[in-house]
Amino acid sequence: MPTEIQMKSALQAYIDAFNRNDLEAIIALYHDDATVEDPYGSSPREGKTQIVEFYRSAMANGATLQLCAPIRASHGDAAAMAFDAVAKLPQGKARVRVIDVMTFDEAGLITSMRAYFGPGDIEFKASSDSRND
Amino acid sequence: MPTEIQMKSALQAYIDAFNRNDLEAIIALYHDDATVEDPYGSSPREGKTQIVEFYRSAMANGATLQLCAPIRASHGDAAAMAFDAVAKLPQGKARVRVIDVMTFDEAGLITSMRAYFGPGDIEFKASSDSRND
Repeated sequence: MPTEIQMKSALQAYIDAFNRNDLEAIIALYHDDATVEDPYGSSPREGKTQIVEFYRSAMANGATLQLCAPIRASHGDAAAMAFDAVAKLPQGKARVRVIDVMTFDEAGLITSMRAYFGPGDIEFKASSDSRND
Repeated sequence: MPTEIQMKSALQAYIDAFNRNDLEAIIALYHDDATVEDPYGSSPREGKTQIVEFYRSAMANGATLQLCAPIRASHGDAAAMAFDAVAKLPQGKARVRVIDVMTFDEAGLITSMRAYFGPGDIEFKASSDSRND
């Protein structure tokens, strides 16, 4: 069983790698045969080739991930985190409210990822909107 | 498929029922054959009898649940939320940092619940500690 610290460190490394646009570092966190179901309810990507493709596209708009609360581990092989993915687009700012749940192997590599968010968890604020957040 | 609004309303109702110590209202949110794995990594409770027993015990210390961020729905049959369970005990204040993931049936009843938190997600602050939070 991976330790709580292993799993939390991996998820923090995931956030940090995403935010510096480091595709290789993200991919290195995954087991070769891992699955990524993002969003939950879609058909999962399987294996490194599909996972690389997924993150290349996910990182293309320069989004950053902002943790909403400390990362949770578990009494088992999983950890979870609530974050907002925020992208500044020419038309305005998009915020997607997400909870990710990852499972891990003995070595602390991610074996599965599921991202929980729906259409209603996406907020868009047009550039002409002068409110801050 | 349950709608995003159905699932989010059920989770908000869950938080509200827990916080007013309303066991019946919590149980009414569950399908008869639901499973509760709390914490994730433990042996799941199955069916209403075991679920009632679980919540009777979980509510016994007067804990309240405080959402850390808006509830997330999904593109599928699940929703998720990050919250802290806070209990004021004679010896001090205990805070457990949790993420719950629930799945739902067509009618919007909870069919499964998993609670992600580990020993490292429990914080205890003794009464003699004068810091606030």
